[in-house]
Amino acid sequence: MRFELTDIFLSNLRTAIHAQNGSFVAEQLNELYSPDIAEIFNHLEIEEAKFVYKLLDEQIASDVMVVLEDDVRERFLASLTAKEIAEQFIENMDSDDAADVIAELPFDVQDEVLSLMEDSEQASDIVDLLNYDEYSAGGLMGKEFVRVHLQSKALECVREIREQTHDLEEVYAIYVVDDDEKLIGLLPLKKLIVSPVRSIVADIYDPKIISVKTNAPAEDVANIMDKYNLVAIPVIDALGRLVGVITIDDVVNFRRNEDTEDVQKMAGITALEEPYMSTPFLQMIKKRAGWLIVLFIGETLTATVMSFFEGQIEKAVVLALFIPLIISSGGNSGSQASTLIIRALALGEITIKDWWKIIKKEFSTGLVIGIILGFIGFIRIGIWSYFVSSYGPYWYLIAFAVSFSLVGVIIWGTLMGSIFPLALKRLGLDPAVSSAPFVATLVDVTGLLIYFSFSIMLLKGILL
Amino acid sequence: MRFELTDIFLSNLRTAIHAQNGSFVAEQLNELYSPDIAEIFNHLEIEEAKFVYKLLDEQIASDVMVVLEDDVRERFLASLTAKEIAEQFIENMDSDDAADVIAELPFDVQDEVLSLMEDSEQASDIVDLLNYDEYSAGGLMGKEFVRVHLQSKALECVREIREQTHDLEEVYAIYVVDDDEKLIGLLPLKKLIVSPVRSIVADIYDPKIISVKTNAPAEDVANIMDKYNLVAIPVIDALGRLVGVITIDDVVNFRRNEDTEDVQKMAGITALEEPYMSTPFLQMIKKRAGWLIVLFIGETLTATVMSFFEGQIEKAVVLALFIPLIISSGGNSGSQASTLIIRALALGEITIKDWWKIIKKEFSTGLVIGIILGFIGFIRIGIWSYFVSSYGPYWYLIAFAVSFSLVGVIIWGTLMGSIFPLALKRLGLDPAVSSAPFVATLVDVTGLLIYFSFSIMLLKGILL
Repeated sequence: MRFELTDIFLSNLRTAIHAQNGSFVAEQLNELYSPDIAEIFNHLEIEEAKFVYKLLDEQIASDVMVVLEDDVRERFLASLTAKEIAEQFIENMDSDDAADVIAELPFDVQDEVLSLMEDSEQASDIVDLLNYDEYSAGGLMGKEFVRVHLQSKALECVREIREQTHDLEEVYAIYVVDDDEKLIGLLPLKKLIVSPVRSIVADIYDPKIISVKTNAPAEDVANIMDKYNLVAIPVIDALGRLVGVITIDDVVNFRRNEDTEDVQKMAGITALEEPYMSTPFLQMIKKRAGWLIVLFIGETLTATVMSFFEGQIEKAVVLALFIPLIISSGGNSGSQASTLIIRALALGEITIKDWWKIIKKEFSTGLVIGIILGFIGFIRIGIWSYFVSSYGPYWYLIAFAVSFSLVGVIIWGTLMGSIFPLALKRLGLDPAVSSAPFVATLVDVTGLLIYFSFSIMLLKGILL
Repeated sequence: MRFELTDIFLSNLRTAIHAQNGSFVAEQLNELYSPDIAEIFNHLEIEEAKFVYKLLDEQIASDVMVVLEDDVRERFLASLTAKEIAEQFIENMDSDDAADVIAELPFDVQDEVLSLMEDSEQASDIVDLLNYDEYSAGGLMGKEFVRVHLQSKALECVREIREQTHDLEEVYAIYVVDDDEKLIGLLPLKKLIVSPVRSIVADIYDPKIISVKTNAPAEDVANIMDKYNLVAIPVIDALGRLVGVITIDDVVNFRRNEDTEDVQKMAGITALEEPYMSTPFLQMIKKRAGWLIVLFIGETLTATVMSFFEGQIEKAVVLALFIPLIISSGGNSGSQASTLIIRALALGEITIKDWWKIIKKEFSTGLVIGIILGFIGFIRIGIWSYFVSSYGPYWYLIAFAVSFSLVGVIIWGTLMGSIFPLALKRLGLDPAVSSAPFVATLVDVTGLLIYFSFSIMLLKGILL
């Protein structure tokens, strides 16, 4: 029963569209769900899409609009009049989706669409929602919910549901409020169904309820819904009055985008606003070049540091051979540490308070890994020294310098990799921002200092 | 109404536990939800936790058990007899949670627990669930659902819900089956509530239903629930019979873990099985040292490559100064590319089929970014050459060598960063596995070749 968009399906459909064969197109789309139709829309030209949407039921057309890719929706809406947008789409959407769609329109069109809406109650709901920060509970919530009073009878709940039923795709629970509209509990649908019709809400509702305030950050809302396994969470204003409900799909989308942004930031990319393929070229350059330039300028310090040791390299060129090996080992161990810490912070597994435990853990991890890699490095140089002349009779001193440096650089890498994200978090910044490459750059510069210091200590008077 | 675990709360509670003050402890926990109690349990000693759990309602104790951290649950279960596990915990759990908990027990204890269960139907459900692959629809689903026949009346649905109500935390929909138990549709609770009690299911149910087969990969299940915005999805066997239901919380957990694993793999860490803090030291070393050793051995190739060019370095030590700068720029741009591609693959934004478009996009991105960084590099060397003698009169040739190398290395980095994950995916492997550091290592080695080739071309007969 599930739909997969094939090239054949698409080309048949486009042929029918161009032949103005409405009945064939309608028949093809009849069995599909709105996300499937949206997938098709993403592949159509505007004029083709307009032909198709006129064949759709208004409710389905609106659902499709909500799940279209951002850039496709933008182009599609631009081809419609404000009147069409208001009457054929916005009126059929849930208030939270409607607010999201309207927020994308140019300001003058926003006002026009809102003024042309026939359902003035929904228009005022949307205006209300537009005032909230996009990343707060108020920005995520919808205004559609079923609310009953404490003294209501079960039968009135059923009537209330019936009245709201055309507005609400899914009802997860009925919310119970007191005479001041303050949220005081909930009544699961299941409970309502199994209770006698004459029951009073006060006798069957559950006063244990988890809610969030309108200004709660979206991140907190997501964490609370995760922790308590909720599919919907009511939102209250400063006075405790029920003003909206957030459903799990809103939160799943938010989380998904946050995770993608985090991953991108960790690689030193300013988070893309659109999917990879639809990101325009210039924007792609802008999002990627920014951090690369900063990192590049930071990395030019390596040239400065190395110029201090030009004399040593001249005397013992063999020292230069191991530079990439040493600094990249520090960078890799630093990336591991920063990635683990950033993810654990994002999941709430650790907090800044744990910093001392984390540093101890990373120090000992770095020490052991450093010793392992240092040992392998020593063996490698030892074996090569049999075959290659350039290591000379003092190969073991070079090997010691490399091995000790590896231990030092790797400990330094894991420490920086763990401290840097914690410090960013402490400063109220996003720990994910470019952490891994920043740590790598930092470790490259300091790694060179560590390496040349060990080399001078061990080889002074011999090779240097 | 939301709970935050404070040090004071915990120490008061532990004092009361040690004083065997059961009524105080019970009162403290009375208002809390099971995830809050689980959070407290994570901080208690086994003996303390055992004192507490005896004070809890059996249902709540079971809920707590389900959400405990894995290692805490393991230790706690090890302190109980099979009889206690069976009667006090497993019997009160949903079948999917029960199967997950039992799967963690030693094999002999598993059998003992199952044989000691009083509810033989649930025991056989659990045995059934244990047969499915953990990462398939069968492994995610629970056996608790409300099923009605096409000819049932609305009133019978209510009775069915009432009968199952003690088993089911949440009812999202009622599933409709035909005489062969084949799934043919669903009846939303909302619809049931607003329909007359004498309605027949056949007249009010929705035949449009999305389901998955038991052997569908968990990843696919998650994608389908995402795409169609479902909070629950029914699972059918090869004959189309309804055998279970997957709820959104199972999928959210699965996704979360997958994302964490992906992020860790991308940084060259074998995915941790436990949260950062509770991962034992030796396991931490094992998970991190593995890839570091592989990368280290790969990176020793840089020493080999550089030894080919020892003569050149000896003649122009100034060349060595820019090595870290050049290879790290290639590494950073490669990490960006691989991260974007891996995430876009995971989100289904791109597929392997798009490989040519991706390569074109990455090539042009790499070209432009390379030119930008190459230009900055040229300026940097130009300015320095006024102040530092080591660049000599041919500073502009060195600057050209560095700039051209930067362009080459960065294009190479973005190409490798995009091709490597696509190739892994094509081979049926996980594209996330260690991609970023692998690409960086690869680019380090080849970056040196690019740099020395340009240097020899431009400086032959002058400095070299």
